[in-house]
Amino acid sequence: MREVFHHELDQLADGLIGMTELVGQAIDDATRALLEADLQLAESVIAADAQVDAAQAELDERAIELLARQAPVATDLRVVVAALRMSSSIERMGDLARHVAQQTRLRFPRSVVPESLAPTFEKMGQTAQRLSGEAGDLIRTRDLAAAAKLESDDDLLDQLHRQVFTRMMAADWTEPAETTVDVTLLSRFYERFGDHAVSVARRVVFLVTGDYSGSTLGE
Amino acid sequence: MREVFHHELDQLADGLIGMTELVGQAIDDATRALLEADLQLAESVIAADAQVDAAQAELDERAIELLARQAPVATDLRVVVAALRMSSSIERMGDLARHVAQQTRLRFPRSVVPESLAPTFEKMGQTAQRLSGEAGDLIRTRDLAAAAKLESDDDLLDQLHRQVFTRMMAADWTEPAETTVDVTLLSRFYERFGDHAVSVARRVVFLVTGDYSGSTLGE
Repeated sequence: MREVFHHELDQLADGLIGMTELVGQAIDDATRALLEADLQLAESVIAADAQVDAAQAELDERAIELLARQAPVATDLRVVVAALRMSSSIERMGDLARHVAQQTRLRFPRSVVPESLAPTFEKMGQTAQRLSGEAGDLIRTRDLAAAAKLESDDDLLDQLHRQVFTRMMAADWTEPAETTVDVTLLSRFYERFGDHAVSVARRVVFLVTGDYSGSTLGE
Repeated sequence: MREVFHHELDQLADGLIGMTELVGQAIDDATRALLEADLQLAESVIAADAQVDAAQAELDERAIELLARQAPVATDLRVVVAALRMSSSIERMGDLARHVAQQTRLRFPRSVVPESLAPTFEKMGQTAQRLSGEAGDLIRTRDLAAAAKLESDDDLLDQLHRQVFTRMMAADWTEPAETTVDVTLLSRFYERFGDHAVSVARRVVFLVTGDYSGSTLGE
């Protein structure tokens, strides 16, 4: 019975890891679509988000069914509840990748990001994709060092986010208000993507250490 | 045993309703602080968010403890899982009210919102506060008509959000980029506040009807 249960917990973890792979691909494609004003790629990111939603729905059903059938307690119960929460965070990462793609589609064929900010958004995209991979690795390995690496990559994403804002506040920023609005939203989408990856990481750390404050990661 | 369990479910609902009251007050105060550039009020909203976080932590612990002790199945199990999810959404509404207050603090003593948009943000604040109350009422009554009312108020909030964006895209918008950035973020905070209220509503509707698509509400 215990063995079956632990096999089912592994399946939940595999489901979550699969979701991190989907959203990692989504944010990578969304960033490429954004920087190349590639409508077709943007459309494919928007369409693919339904897969993330379906993966979440399936995983959540499995988790609830597991609660009903096995009535886990103590740590086992917390692992299942954490899986439900992590699936929400990862699903939201998918939404944010979709939002980036939707902004690309909205302004097509014009490019949303001015050339001077393209390198910053490229780095944001790379960092966000890396965060997805690290979240998946962390779910797989439960290695606290990987959690610290993830938090440090999120710090980098926050720095890039601040760079974008500093650029828009500069005296020589002469872009129209529409661009300022778009860039503000886009930068926020990447920042939030990172926040959700951190939230996944902290849930894993909590399961390992019992501490959800992030203090274990030396913040 | 069943009676004890249902009493405990009622306590979870009361906890959620208490949280909607806190975030309703928070968004009302945050809007007032924003429109009157009231630093002291902004600070009090920021400090009060810790109460929402504490209420969520307590409620979630109670829900998990209930799962462990009672091992509910079927609808009872879904009610407890839904409570965990609703508490996340309401906690996030509290964060968004805090973000509005933080923006006010960041720009103090300057007013963040230009005068021409003050009436729109005032309406957004009123609508957001109403949505919090409606979410609480819905958790209390499980009345589908109340859910439809909530969705229609969220439509109003989305309309106001679009009005803000239309205003910023107009030829006579001559505010500096800093204001454009701030207004974009603020408007998005209110919009997201509404989205989370809708998410709470849909969880209640799902418990009542088994349908989470929102289609029961005639969307």
